[in-house]
Amino acid sequence: MNVVVQNIERADQAVIDGLAHAGVATVHEAQGRIGLLAHYMRPIYPGARIAGSAVTISSPPGDNWMVHVAIEQLKAGDILVLAPTSPCVDGYFGDLLATSAMARGCRGLVIDAGVRDVRDLTQMGFPVWSRAVFAQGTVKNTLGSVNVPIVCAGAAIQPGDVIVADDDGVCVVKRADAADVLAKAQAREAAEEAKRVRLAAGELGLDIYDMRPRLEQMGLTYV
Amino acid sequence: MNVVVQNIERADQAVIDGLAHAGVATVHEAQGRIGLLAHYMRPIYPGARIAGSAVTISSPPGDNWMVHVAIEQLKAGDILVLAPTSPCVDGYFGDLLATSAMARGCRGLVIDAGVRDVRDLTQMGFPVWSRAVFAQGTVKNTLGSVNVPIVCAGAAIQPGDVIVADDDGVCVVKRADAADVLAKAQAREAAEEAKRVRLAAGELGLDIYDMRPRLEQMGLTYV
Amino acid sequence: MNVVVQNIERADQAVIDGLAHAGVATVHEAQGRIGLLAHYMRPIYPGARIAGSAVTISSPPGDNWMVHVAIEQLKAGDILVLAPTSPCVDGYFGDLLATSAMARGCRGLVIDAGVRDVRDLTQMGFPVWSRAVFAQGTVKNTLGSVNVPIVCAGAAIQPGDVIVADDDGVCVVKRADAADVLAKAQAREAAEEAKRVRLAAGELGLDIYDMRPRLEQMGLTYV
Amino acid sequence: MNVVVQNIERADQAVIDGLAHAGVATVHEAQGRIGLLAHYMRPIYPGARIAGSAVTISSPPGDNWMVHVAIEQLKAGDILVLAPTSPCVDGYFGDLLATSAMARGCRGLVIDAGVRDVRDLTQMGFPVWSRAVFAQGTVKNTLGSVNVPIVCAGAAIQPGDVIVADDDGVCVVKRADAADVLAKAQAREAAEEAKRVRLAAGELGLDIYDMRPRLEQMGLTYV
Amino acid sequence: MNVVVQNIERADQAVIDGLAHAGVATVHEAQGRIGLLAHYMRPIYPGARIAGSAVTISSPPGDNWMVHVAIEQLKAGDILVLAPTSPCVDGYFGDLLATSAMARGCRGLVIDAGVRDVRDLTQMGFPVWSRAVFAQGTVKNTLGSVNVPIVCAGAAIQPGDVIVADDDGVCVVKRADAADVLAKAQAREAAEEAKRVRLAAGELGLDIYDMRPRLEQMGLTYV
Amino acid sequence: MNVVVQNIERADQAVIDGLAHAGVATVHEAQGRIGLLAHYMRPIYPGARIAGSAVTISSPPGDNWMVHVAIEQLKAGDILVLAPTSPCVDGYFGDLLATSAMARGCRGLVIDAGVRDVRDLTQMGFPVWSRAVFAQGTVKNTLGSVNVPIVCAGAAIQPGDVIVADDDGVCVVKRADAADVLAKAQAREAAEEAKRVRLAAGELGLDIYDMRPRLEQMGLTYV
Repeated sequence: MNVVVQNIERADQAVIDGLAHAGVATVHEAQGRIGLLAHYMRPIYPGARIAGSAVTISSPPGDNWMVHVAIEQLKAGDILVLAPTSPCVDGYFGDLLATSAMARGCRGLVIDAGVRDVRDLTQMGFPVWSRAVFAQGTVKNTLGSVNVPIVCAGAAIQPGDVIVADDDGVCVVKRADAADVLAKAQAREAAEEAKRVRLAAGELGLDIYDMRPRLEQMGLTYV
Repeated sequence: MNVVVQNIERADQAVIDGLAHAGVATVHEAQGRIGLLAHYMRPIYPGARIAGSAVTISSPPGDNWMVHVAIEQLKAGDILVLAPTSPCVDGYFGDLLATSAMARGCRGLVIDAGVRDVRDLTQMGFPVWSRAVFAQGTVKNTLGSVNVPIVCAGAAIQPGDVIVADDDGVCVVKRADAADVLAKAQAREAAEEAKRVRLAAGELGLDIYDMRPRLEQMGLTYV
Repeated sequence: MNVVVQNIERADQAVIDGLAHAGVATVHEAQGRIGLLAHYMRPIYPGARIAGSAVTISSPPGDNWMVHVAIEQLKAGDILVLAPTSPCVDGYFGDLLATSAMARGCRGLVIDAGVRDVRDLTQMGFPVWSRAVFAQGTVKNTLGSVNVPIVCAGAAIQPGDVIVADDDGVCVVKRADAADVLAKAQAREAAEEAKRVRLAAGELGLDIYDMRPRLEQMGLTYV
Repeated sequence: MNVVVQNIERADQAVIDGLAHAGVATVHEAQGRIGLLAHYMRPIYPGARIAGSAVTISSPPGDNWMVHVAIEQLKAGDILVLAPTSPCVDGYFGDLLATSAMARGCRGLVIDAGVRDVRDLTQMGFPVWSRAVFAQGTVKNTLGSVNVPIVCAGAAIQPGDVIVADDDGVCVVKRADAADVLAKAQAREAAEEAKRVRLAAGELGLDIYDMRPRLEQMGLTYV
Repeated sequence: MNVVVQNIERADQAVIDGLAHAGVATVHEAQGRIGLLAHYMRPIYPGARIAGSAVTISSPPGDNWMVHVAIEQLKAGDILVLAPTSPCVDGYFGDLLATSAMARGCRGLVIDAGVRDVRDLTQMGFPVWSRAVFAQGTVKNTLGSVNVPIVCAGAAIQPGDVIVADDDGVCVVKRADAADVLAKAQAREAAEEAKRVRLAAGELGLDIYDMRPRLEQMGLTYV
Repeated sequence: MNVVVQNIERADQAVIDGLAHAGVATVHEAQGRIGLLAHYMRPIYPGARIAGSAVTISSPPGDNWMVHVAIEQLKAGDILVLAPTSPCVDGYFGDLLATSAMARGCRGLVIDAGVRDVRDLTQMGFPVWSRAVFAQGTVKNTLGSVNVPIVCAGAAIQPGDVIVADDDGVCVVKRADAADVLAKAQAREAAEEAKRVRLAAGELGLDIYDMRPRLEQMGLTYV
C-alpha cells in the first residue's frame, strides 16, 4: 500500500522550459482553463517563475518522512509536489531539506501544507508555493508514498506531469499534453503581444474583439 | 436591467489627490470610521497609495465581459471597482486589461474577486487591491452593469465616489463629502504630527490625552 | 478585575538575544515543538527576526485603550503582546503608538487582531506580527488588563515570557526555561550546520539519519 | 452622527406576508437575482420562513447597546437587522432581548454577528439568522445608530425594506419594489408548479426548456 | 472539449447497497483511509445514508446548464456529483431539479458548491451534501461536461465510481474496487461489533489492543 | 516529556451539576466574560447541556493514541477535552471510543479537531462539541500527554477544571472558582427571571436599566 515508484517518465526538458517562460496564466488558458491548483497556494517570495516534472509525495498529516524518501527520486529539473492525506498546515520542509533537494537539481516545492525557514529559503533562491508558512515541526513515524497519483490543492497530478508555478499560482500540465500546450501557449503569447500594442495605443477591447454587436443583441443598455 | 451609465459626476481632482496623500487610515478616521472595505482586500504589491473616482462594475461570477465595457467609461484619474454578484475568486483582470485601462488614465483596480498576471502588473506599476490572486480565467457570456451602485467587500459604493487605497486597505468617501473629509483629514494629520513629536520624546499617551483620571474612575487597578 | 501588573520578571537579556538569533523554527524544535502561535500570525514586512520579554494586553474587541496603559509598562527590549477577548481584526495599533513604544525601547508587537499604518511602520522599522492588516479604528471606552496571563493566537503566554518572532511566525518560551531552551537551540544549530554540509554535498537524509532499515521494516515498497 | 430615526415607512403588510410565503429563492429570482445576504447567514433552527420590515441597527463590535434602543422602535411585523461596524462574532442577542422584541411583535432577527441562548430562542420560536452562535457577551459603552442605511452580510439595506428569510438564507427587497416583486414571485411559483408536474412525470428539462438546439450549436458533443 | 459521455460502467447494485449500509467511516477505513471528500461537505439534513454510482458534472462557476444535461444520463441508483471549475457557492440545484432527478431514480446529490430550496428537498427526502446552502441562482450560458473525471472537494472521481455519503461526509470508492472494499468493510463491522461488546462491559482499548507494552517502550510516563 | 497525570483534583459534583443547569451563556457572564472556547466549536446535535471535570488530552495531529490512554483516567462525570498540537480536523473519535468512555461514566467530548460516527453518537446520546465532523481516520504512532495543561480552541484548560457545554458553545471554569461562579450564576438567573417577566409585559430595557440619561449625555440623537 505504501510504495515508491522509482522510474517515472518525464516530459521533454525544452518543452518544460518553454512552459516556464509562458507562465501560469498563459499555460492555463492555452490548455482550456484546466489544471489550476487552488488559489490559496502562494509563493513564499515574489518573482519566481519555474516549471519542472512532478515528483509526487502523499504524506500523513504532520509527518514528513516521505520527503526524505522522495528526495532520492529527484532528477535535475524536478519539482517536489506534496499533498497530505488530510488537511494540515505543519511545516514539512525547511532549509536542510531544501539544501538536499537543491543538491539534486530540484527547482522548487509545491506543498498543500506548510513550509518553514522561509527567510533561508528566500536567500537560497529555493522557491516554494504553499498553503501556509508555519514553524510547526513534523515527525517521522508513519509511511506514505512517492510518485503515486495525488490530488494536490484540488488538482489531480500524476508523477511526471509538468508543474508550472509563478506569482499567479500553480498549474499542472499532463505530461502527454505538454508539447501541444506549449505550442498553444506560444501562439497565445504572440497574439497577445499584437493586442497589447493596440490596447496601449488606446484602442478598446470592445472594438478589437468586436463585442459591440453581441452586447447590443443581448440587451445591454447605455444610459 | 443591464445598464451602462455613461455620465457620472466626479469629485474635484485636487480633493481626490489630497485624500490620496492622507491615506486610508487617516481618511477613515476623518469621516467617522465609516466606508472601509473588508480587510481581506489586499494590495498585490506594497507601497502604492492612490485615490480616484469609482467606475463601478457589477459582474456575474466568472465573467469579465463588463470590464471591457467599463474601460470605455474611464476618464483619467478613475479607479475601476468590481463586485461580482456572488462570491468568486476568479482572475477577472490581467496585464492586457491593465494596458488598456492605463491607456485611458486609470489609476488602479479594486476587485472583490481575483486578479492575475500580477508580476506584469507590478512591473507596469498598475496597483490592484483584490480578494485573491488566481490565474483562473473568465468567460464573456453574461451581461452585468457599469456605473451602478454596488456593494464591494462590504462597502456601499456609488459611481463617482472617491476610492482611497494603500497598504492598509481600501476606503470609500462619498463624492459629496470629499472636500469636507479632506479638510478633516488634514486637520487630523496636523494634530498627529504634534503628538508624534511628543510621543517620540517619551511622553506617554496616558498623559497627552489625560487618560489617567477616567481610567481610575472606571476602576483600573495597578498592582 | 481589570488590573495592571507593574513589576514583572524578565529573562536574561543575553539569553533573549540568543533566542532571537536562533529563530522561531529552531527554538520551537529545541523546546519540544511547543509554544507556537497560530500560523495566521504573519509579519507586516519580511526579514525581521526579534526576541523580547512579553508585556501582555487583554483588550475588549475594538478597544485599544489598554495599549496606552501598557506602553507605560514597557522596558527596553520588551515586546507588546495583545489578545482581544473575542475575535477581532480591527486596527488597534498604528504609527503614533509605535512612535511611543519605540521611545521606550519596545522591539515589536504581536497582536491577534489587526494593525494599520503598515507603510509607516515598515519605514520606521517597527515589526508587527498580526492576524490582519486593517485600517478600522478602535475606541477607548472599556477597560482590559495589562501583564496578566493571556491566550494569544492559541498559545498561553505569561507576562515576562520570551517571545521569538521571524518570518516563520511567533513562538513563546517560558521565562524559566529560556536559558535551557537557548542551550538546546544552539546545540541544534551546530548539529544542523554539519548536516547542511553533507546534504549540500549530495548525501541523502535517508543515509545520514539511517532511515532505510526502519522504512523497510515498516513495509515501504520500492517498485 | 449617532442617530435614531423614529419614523420609517414600511411596505404593505399583505405584500410582506406574500413574500414570506414565496420564500427566499423565489423572491431572489423574481427580483432579478439581487438582494441576497452572504451565504454564511444561517438560521439557528430549521423550518422558519418569515418576512418583515427592517429596523436596522449599526453597532460597534462587541457592544449591543443599540439593540435596546432599536427595540423601542419596533412595530408588529418588523425584523431587527444588525450589522456591526467591523467584523464580530460576539453574541449580541439572547433570550431576554428576544422576550422584549416578541412583546412588541418582532418576527425575528438577522445579524451579521453572533447570537446566544439559542436553545431558549428555539423553544420560544424566535427565529434568528446569524453569522455565528457564540456565548461571548457584549458591553454597553459605545453608541451606534438605529434605522440608518446599513450593509449587512454584503447587502445594502434601508430601514423599512422587506426582509425575507428561510432555510435558504436571507434576501432584502426594496420597500418600493415589494408589490412588484411579489407579483413576479407569484407568477414564478405558478409557472414552477406546472413544470414540477411535468418533471415529476419524467419529462426532461432539456425538452421542457428546449435546450437541445442551443447546446448543439454551442458545440456540446455526445460520445 | 465539452462532452457528455453516455455509457458509463457501474458497480454491482448489491455491492453498492452493501457499501451504503456500512457507511462512510467504515468504508473509508476499509479501503485504507483514502477517497474522502473534504470535511466542508455537509448534509442538508441529518440521518441520510446512501450509496450510488457517480454521474459526474464539470460546470463553470454560477452556471447550472450541465445539470439539466446530466439528468438525462441518470439511471436508477445513481448519484449526481458536481464540481465547479473554480470555487463557487451558488445554488446550482433546487426542488425542480430534484423532482426531475428523483423521477429518474437518482438517490442524491454531492456538490462542491451551493444548493437551495433545502426545506423542500428535506420534505421530498432528497439528500444533498454540499459546501454551502445559498439561494443565489445560476445562469445557463456556458458549457461544461458530463461523465468526465473530476476532482470534487479534493477527491478524484471517475464516472461510475461508487459514492457513499452519510452524516460523517462523503467517500468515493473506485468502481473496480467496490466488491473488495465491501468485503473488508463487512469484516471490519463484524470485528467492531465484538469490540463494542467488550468496551461496553468496561474493558479498556489499552488492553483489548495490547497497547501498554509499546506505550511504555516509547517512553510514556505515568505520574 | 510525554506524561499521564493519574491523580487530578475535581470540583464538587453538586457544583458541577449546578453549572450545567445554568448553561454556558450564564456561566460565562457570571465569571466576568472569560473562559469561552472559540465559536467554531459546535455540538453534533442540538439540545445537550452538560458539565463535567476536564480530563485533558494533548495529541499529535492525526493520531488518537492518547484517547485510549485518557479513557483509563476517566471517572464518572468527567468530560474528555482534546487539543491537537497543530491544527487538525481528522476524526479522532467515533462510536467505539464513545462506548468505552460511556462505560466509565464520561459525559461527553470537547475536541478542537474532528469527530466521526456522529449518527451513532447521536443515537447513543453521547454529546460532542467539535471543530469539524470528518470521517478521516487517525493512526496510533506518536505519543502525546494526558491531564496536562492545554489550550483548546483558544482557552487555557487545566485538568480538573469544570467544562460547561450546550448549544451556545463551551466554557471552562477554573476548578477553584467553580463554587463562586455557581453562586453568581444562580444570582444572575434569579435576576434575569424578574427582568424576563417585565420585558414580556412590554416594559423596555431602556427603562428597566435606566439607559436613557446616559444615552442622551453621550449624544444619541432621535430624529
